[in-house]
Amino acid sequence: MPESLAKSTPLRAGVILFPGFQALDVFGPLDCLNVLSRNHDMTLAIISSTLEPVSTESPGFPNAISQSVVPTHTFATAPALDLLLVPGGLGTRSTNPVIEEAISFIRDVYPQLSHLITVCTGSGLAARAGVLDGKRATSNKLVWAEITAMSTSVDWVPHARWVVDGNVWTSSGVSAGIDVTLAWIEKTFGSEEASRIANRIEYIRHEDPSDDPFAKMYGL
Amino acid sequence: MPESLAKSTPLRAGVILFPGFQALDVFGPLDCLNVLSRNHDMTLAIISSTLEPVSTESPGFPNAISQSVVPTHTFATAPALDLLLVPGGLGTRSTNPVIEEAISFIRDVYPQLSHLITVCTGSGLAARAGVLDGKRATSNKLVWAEITAMSTSVDWVPHARWVVDGNVWTSSGVSAGIDVTLAWIEKTFGSEEASRIANRIEYIRHEDPSDDPFAKMYGL
Repeated sequence: MPESLAKSTPLRAGVILFPGFQALDVFGPLDCLNVLSRNHDMTLAIISSTLEPVSTESPGFPNAISQSVVPTHTFATAPALDLLLVPGGLGTRSTNPVIEEAISFIRDVYPQLSHLITVCTGSGLAARAGVLDGKRATSNKLVWAEITAMSTSVDWVPHARWVVDGNVWTSSGVSAGIDVTLAWIEKTFGSEEASRIANRIEYIRHEDPSDDPFAKMYGL
Repeated sequence: MPESLAKSTPLRAGVILFPGFQALDVFGPLDCLNVLSRNHDMTLAIISSTLEPVSTESPGFPNAISQSVVPTHTFATAPALDLLLVPGGLGTRSTNPVIEEAISFIRDVYPQLSHLITVCTGSGLAARAGVLDGKRATSNKLVWAEITAMSTSVDWVPHARWVVDGNVWTSSGVSAGIDVTLAWIEKTFGSEEASRIANRIEYIRHEDPSDDPFAKMYGL
């Protein structure tokens, strides 16, 4: 077993949900972890403000379609975690109090984590929690200016599919969450396991973290 | 508006859920449709046997991690649909009675549909419903033999990221659901809209339906 996991088996993973999360930010990474968990001992806590299902319905789009996912824990009842996944979505920039609760949770739990993965504008929540201070990090490219303005203490990297700084893995927008998760699995469980999962989900990986056509597309 | 949609506005979409569905089979396509629905009038019915949340927990892997999604309708209460999305997953080959109900639903609803999209082993359910009879279709490549054995009346196409035959769009495994959905959006709403959505989710599309390295990888 890789040294980074030796201190905790099973691997205790958690994901934060808030109203207006982006569905693929959550389920790209989780689909990879679901397949991983068929081979490795893992738990998953799905964490939000209450145990009520959490909707992808996004502020500003009340007539758009949406889906709801069931939490397993609240911010108050979340178990000890090794890995925390923070998705993005339009909800990250809402005034819903769940967002402030999520930011407080990230700030409080970060010291106990072995690994933090953010997807898309989820890095904005981590930045507001202060856990990216002094670290290199990336985010969604379309709303780059809005997210990077949330903290001047982060070394924001515009041209990146994902960025690793210590135990913090931040990805670019939405589908980049699949690549950062497979890269994290490769580092943590080995390249064979990452390839097995990518092939199982018939996903053609982007294995170069600097492979980012969207930075240029959005003028960064 | 494209002629194919003229007969129904809003576009009435539906997705089937069953225990052991593959998360990304559902949320790759739905994330694309969620973004589409911010620009286009749509409804979404999330359909299963009951209104209880449906889990990704898969037969044979009781200790793997899972997530649960909330249906909006049952097979008995589902509204009229223009588009039906059928995901795959290990649950498709279970003996859970929900699978037989799902197959019956596909058989019954198909004549009213304008479009059917299947992802991964979801084509096995469509094949068992008989709606792929005489049609070209594809499926997951790892379990190709098992799925194609479900119907000898289908013209199974092994080397394909996705296949279109009339109003039936079938994709290869898991992440191929994103490509087939974006291809369907391109055909239905135009290439600019498909590009807008792909760029919004920072997804590098596979635009050639014959671009399928996994067929060769799995010896097909």
